[in-house]
Amino acid sequence: MKYVGYYNGQFGSVDEIRIPMTDRAVYFGDGVYDVALLYNRRPFALDDHLDRFYRSCQMIDIDFKVPRDEMHAIIEKMISMADDSVGQIYWQVSRGSGYRAHTYPDDMQPNLLAFIKPQNIPDLSIKYKMITMPDPRYQMCNVKTINLLPNVMACEKAMRAGCNEAILVRDGYVMECSHSNCSIIKNGVFRTAPTTCQILPGVARMHTIQLCHKLGIPVVEEAFTVEEMMDADEVISTATSVFLRTASEI
Amino acid sequence: MKYVGYYNGQFGSVDEIRIPMTDRAVYFGDGVYDVALLYNRRPFALDDHLDRFYRSCQMIDIDFKVPRDEMHAIIEKMISMADDSVGQIYWQVSRGSGYRAHTYPDDMQPNLLAFIKPQNIPDLSIKYKMITMPDPRYQMCNVKTINLLPNVMACEKAMRAGCNEAILVRDGYVMECSHSNCSIIKNGVFRTAPTTCQILPGVARMHTIQLCHKLGIPVVEEAFTVEEMMDADEVISTATSVFLRTASEI
Repeated sequence: MKYVGYYNGQFGSVDEIRIPMTDRAVYFGDGVYDVALLYNRRPFALDDHLDRFYRSCQMIDIDFKVPRDEMHAIIEKMISMADDSVGQIYWQVSRGSGYRAHTYPDDMQPNLLAFIKPQNIPDLSIKYKMITMPDPRYQMCNVKTINLLPNVMACEKAMRAGCNEAILVRDGYVMECSHSNCSIIKNGVFRTAPTTCQILPGVARMHTIQLCHKLGIPVVEEAFTVEEMMDADEVISTATSVFLRTASEI
Repeated sequence: MKYVGYYNGQFGSVDEIRIPMTDRAVYFGDGVYDVALLYNRRPFALDDHLDRFYRSCQMIDIDFKVPRDEMHAIIEKMISMADDSVGQIYWQVSRGSGYRAHTYPDDMQPNLLAFIKPQNIPDLSIKYKMITMPDPRYQMCNVKTINLLPNVMACEKAMRAGCNEAILVRDGYVMECSHSNCSIIKNGVFRTAPTTCQILPGVARMHTIQLCHKLGIPVVEEAFTVEEMMDADEVISTATSVFLRTASEI
């Protein structure tokens, strides 16, 4: 099957699975998600993504009780049903279903939704064209929530400008991109913004930093300005879906 | 029927209507909404809400083609099916359905979802307990989007503190509340923050300003500080769902 989907125990085609209109994801974006790479029919760094996912749940007070081994089993079953061996494994949890009210009862049962999206490994030799724009996002960027409209708008704007990614800038400082982290290399030093509430703690970002440590490349977690970026030796976008890409033009 | 619902042409119970998991509302919050009051089986100020709704669509580039008279007809049909004569009329449009990708094709067909939620007219003599907290929201608060997680978190936090509403504060200035606008009266002058990208242009706010003009009460659209609010003669929360409420305690 292409595009295998899952919702609260039901497996099937993403095109056929339907969910209640009362799911709080639908009208509040009241949920969190994560995405892992599927490669050769195996999830890559799944536990790193699950670590972040459970943290995201906690940070917005979602009492998600499905244990890690059950999450592994759900993902493994989706992989076994999938035609494709390479792609993205996506899962999200919403706070639950109910009539629309901002406040929520203590005993809400979270809804788990997941799917596998086939995707070829990108050609990493193709460099990115990037564009800077003001970062309009909230102060919860460290939580991987499904409140992604500003990211959608920024990414679409970049695409319409003939670019691959938008670099989001706050008060002159580069935060991250619309769906990737942003880093630079200058004089052999890897520099990237620290993971405050304005930055997603990217798993690809973490792996890149681990590789830097392994290779003896100094790492500085300190925000850089647009000017420092334009003066860098290399500008890098990292994300699970795009791997590590360098820029040819900004 | 209680809780009448609607999705893309289908009318029925909110508890039974199901929507595709590929609706971009579900995983991006990629949509906008509006809410009008239902009173004596009639929508109140519906065209004011539709004006804002069509503006919200434009502001996030959703090409929503359902004309105003058809929106009236859908809402009238929901009202005719409803048991209750008083409540909230809610409708939202998402950009469309598709496999998850931040960018979107030009020809996406928006999804329209709506429901009627029964609600008693609140006892306006009961004053609000309110609590201030930092405003973590994005710079798109003038668009009535379904990216409402920060509002959900603020409202829940207020409720747990024994309060009715959260007053959101940015750099010492009162912006608005978690789901209402905030205003003060001081020395006979009505003062409220201007509708920048940090404030929702509330319909109840607009009606309150119109009433002030009619009654000869001076209106100043200028943000006020927390200190100015604490020194005010009256602190007011306005929203379609809560009408005009004054605070007893902050």
